[in-house]
Amino acid sequence: MNQDKHFGDRLIRQIRHKKSFVIVGLDPQPQMMPDLLFSKSTRGQVVSCQDLSEAIWEFNQELITAIAPYVVAVKLQIAFYQYLGWQGLRIFAKTIEYSKQHGLLVVADAKCNDIGSTAEAYAHSFLGPVLSSALDSPSAFDADAVTVNPYLGRDGIEPFTLAADSQGKGIFVLVRTSNPFAGDIQDLTSPRGRVYQVVGRMVHEFGESKKGALGYTFVGAVVGATYPDEAMKLRKIMPDSFFLVPGYGAQGGSAKDVLPCFNPDGLGAVINASRSVIYAFKGSPWKEELSERDYALAASSAAKSMRDEINEAVAKGRTLPWS
Amino acid sequence: MNQDKHFGDRLIRQIRHKKSFVIVGLDPQPQMMPDLLFSKSTRGQVVSCQDLSEAIWEFNQELITAIAPYVVAVKLQIAFYQYLGWQGLRIFAKTIEYSKQHGLLVVADAKCNDIGSTAEAYAHSFLGPVLSSALDSPSAFDADAVTVNPYLGRDGIEPFTLAADSQGKGIFVLVRTSNPFAGDIQDLTSPRGRVYQVVGRMVHEFGESKKGALGYTFVGAVVGATYPDEAMKLRKIMPDSFFLVPGYGAQGGSAKDVLPCFNPDGLGAVINASRSVIYAFKGSPWKEELSERDYALAASSAAKSMRDEINEAVAKGRTLPWS
Repeated sequence: MNQDKHFGDRLIRQIRHKKSFVIVGLDPQPQMMPDLLFSKSTRGQVVSCQDLSEAIWEFNQELITAIAPYVVAVKLQIAFYQYLGWQGLRIFAKTIEYSKQHGLLVVADAKCNDIGSTAEAYAHSFLGPVLSSALDSPSAFDADAVTVNPYLGRDGIEPFTLAADSQGKGIFVLVRTSNPFAGDIQDLTSPRGRVYQVVGRMVHEFGESKKGALGYTFVGAVVGATYPDEAMKLRKIMPDSFFLVPGYGAQGGSAKDVLPCFNPDGLGAVINASRSVIYAFKGSPWKEELSERDYALAASSAAKSMRDEINEAVAKGRTLPWS
Repeated sequence: MNQDKHFGDRLIRQIRHKKSFVIVGLDPQPQMMPDLLFSKSTRGQVVSCQDLSEAIWEFNQELITAIAPYVVAVKLQIAFYQYLGWQGLRIFAKTIEYSKQHGLLVVADAKCNDIGSTAEAYAHSFLGPVLSSALDSPSAFDADAVTVNPYLGRDGIEPFTLAADSQGKGIFVLVRTSNPFAGDIQDLTSPRGRVYQVVGRMVHEFGESKKGALGYTFVGAVVGATYPDEAMKLRKIMPDSFFLVPGYGAQGGSAKDVLPCFNPDGLGAVINASRSVIYAFKGSPWKEELSERDYALAASSAAKSMRDEINEAVAKGRTLPWS
């Protein structure tokens, strides 16, 4: 298989190229965004979906240009676009294209979960034109990978692995999420292990025959930075899967906490932060040094700091994969 | 609380008014739709998202008008709109409004799963304007209820119950899905019972203090028609919750299979069918009697038959709630 056609290979080459494990979540929340983006409307008033969408589009373009040197990918949570209706989804699509033009991979964080033809329609939405027959439409949101929720079981995952395989794309299955009550379901103990371990094995089974030339599969897992003990167990269950690790920064995860997500080869994990990067201008040390209009500069600086922190932590005890 | 403001009450009054427990899934698949809707484009060729969206919009309007007398609600699976990009989502929004104008409740089947501000953004998308602060935008897709996936735990459900409470809307949490491998995760046995039972209790706990004047909560459950034994157990765990029951018709569930979803009062369940109604013109007896152009008439007839079959089954041993 052509290396360019395997998401695992593409992700590894991107990590080596950027010398970074960082993903930034572009989750725009108008009440957090710089006031200057709202000059045409009136902050605090009812504004149209169109106006808010345009402000987000401007925000995203500035951020992408600023962070691109330091990050491997952006992750777009669809909810932050969808609540603005079709106008917001238009910006979602434009942001995906803009990110790719700036040399970034794109993860569509849609946490899809459905079966059969519905799952295929989701896969078509985010992974490329995989539906056959009359609806040979282009892919609406042509991302590199999509997140998938496993509650429905194997037939809720397989349509996404088939689509990803045919399109050279990836998926990340929610295995262990980063939120406080993640354990309600995921920690339940069964004769087959805890629920998150059962899901981890499912992910491994879907991916193991699908490794790229560089040794990793295109079937990844979401594993929260806030649960390092669980991450250590999952690393053993899914040795060849990439972990997409949320929870760094604003949610409390540190560089030390994400280390169990890495393999000894210094690969196997990409670490996501959203608020701590895209709203860096609101926090220390940037708010003391920069004005609000420098929000992109603050994000760039925060992304670089995060990259350096993680690289430094990984370098202790593991091989950096570009050295 | 005003009865009009409680989703459980609204659903019950709608059931009584329509003398029906039927929900129809508007899940348009171009390759299944009548050829005549594609006269302006060319079937089998690459057509634009805009052309496909317009064909779906025409299909939906005809269907809604035709089935409205026999059904309480429509369920819109967002994937079948989203893969057409923002053009498809525009038709999703228009279909919601059109359905409401025709006296139907609307379930947005988005199977949302996220936490915190992301979950709030999803809730804002589908349940009404619940986000405060600068983004006082209207709700993009103002449905009456939304489906929610429970894998993330309580903090993945609560933002939706809060939004539904404040807006007089409802949610349906995936408890036991209708697909063949539903049991992969949902059937795992834990000290607290099987996973689907643990989720069922969670749903009950969220809803029990939130009953409407007519005795049912606005926190419902998705319980597949294809698993009647599990449905029977879940009916006891969630006595005051409505079940949204998929799997009738094309997926193999019969009127007898859905009976365990009902309470003795003849309430507590609404039954969804998609393909067997909206593509009725492709199957017996309609394909023998009607031409393809009569697809709406076939759907109307199929919806009426489904209503009558279910009413007849419920009437044996339970009280019909309008008698």
